[in-house]
Amino acid sequence: MNAETSAITAKGARTRGSIIEEAVRAASVGGIESLSIGALANRLKISKSGLFAHFGSRESLQLAVLQEAVERVTNEAIRPALKEPRGLPRLTRFMENWIGWPERARLPGGCPFIAAALELDDRPGELRDFVADKSRELVGTIERLIRDAIETGELRRDIDVSQLAFELHGIAYGHIVWSRLLDRKGSRTRALTAFHKLIEKHRSPSG
Amino acid sequence: MNAETSAITAKGARTRGSIIEEAVRAASVGGIESLSIGALANRLKISKSGLFAHFGSRESLQLAVLQEAVERVTNEAIRPALKEPRGLPRLTRFMENWIGWPERARLPGGCPFIAAALELDDRPGELRDFVADKSRELVGTIERLIRDAIETGELRRDIDVSQLAFELHGIAYGHIVWSRLLDRKGSRTRALTAFHKLIEKHRSPSG
Repeated sequence: MNAETSAITAKGARTRGSIIEEAVRAASVGGIESLSIGALANRLKISKSGLFAHFGSRESLQLAVLQEAVERVTNEAIRPALKEPRGLPRLTRFMENWIGWPERARLPGGCPFIAAALELDDRPGELRDFVADKSRELVGTIERLIRDAIETGELRRDIDVSQLAFELHGIAYGHIVWSRLLDRKGSRTRALTAFHKLIEKHRSPSG
Repeated sequence: MNAETSAITAKGARTRGSIIEEAVRAASVGGIESLSIGALANRLKISKSGLFAHFGSRESLQLAVLQEAVERVTNEAIRPALKEPRGLPRLTRFMENWIGWPERARLPGGCPFIAAALELDDRPGELRDFVADKSRELVGTIERLIRDAIETGELRRDIDVSQLAFELHGIAYGHIVWSRLLDRKGSRTRALTAFHKLIEKHRSPSG
């Protein structure tokens, strides 16, 4: 690759990056199904054909937005948790960082991924498969964090791990609806209180 | 009104009813923002202008669909609960009927109303206001059912009513995601187990 092609490629990557940045913000507000190539091109002051050159189709742009959302939730909630000691501290840090991560990541609307989960649940296709796979992975992560806290002796051995994962997942969805739609103040505190109540109920007598 | 006008009006009401029926099914699968006048007219084998004659705009059709969804959840979950004795039996029947009501009502997708809650949370307008108002009413109903069960002495007097309502609301959202997107079997049992665990934790010693 000569210097000129390299410069063009670098510029292409920057443009691709700024398209995704804008598209993630748009999906955060309007949902993944609201993404419009025309509206995005307009806002970014590039041509529709220029935008198509980067993504080829609306669906591949939507997939790129969902991949970016997974990347961000991993950076915001999972990676920082892995720095905590294995067990309850790690599970707690994960929940603290997961609840409300879009606000901390300065997304104007909610998590594009969670909205997509409900938008796409009945629409077979590549996007739904991606969202379902990544949501299952997240549940798997939560289950692993719970199992770790059982192994460290902090949580009781007789816990139904999937049941507790279901209850933690529900807290996160409840938080989104209460904070974003119902505009209830203190929803983050409610969500973390619900989490801590659940943990107290499942704590092992020795933990 | 003579017999002929009356017959025309009755036919109009039937057509309006079948449009809403089809639109509720479509919104159940694709979400409230996916509703298309053209696609609906096509499926119902009526003209687009015929459909517009009943609703005037896409937004008023969307509003009619959300009103119908509220009517159905009221019939499926709230009215049957009111036949139970005030207190824990009523709260329990409400939760049992609320979790999974769209399947019992033979909707092909999930609850059009809950999907709309996440679709519309960041989009100001009449539809969002309607969904937010009705969601607040539902939370108010849950809070009243909890307060009743405190007054009957079944639940403890020191309960934070809104906190418990938040936790019950989260169970319902968690159930939707686990059953519809993750295709996890037994999600209804998980949701009802989560409910009964919460109730046991909040039951008054004498209840």
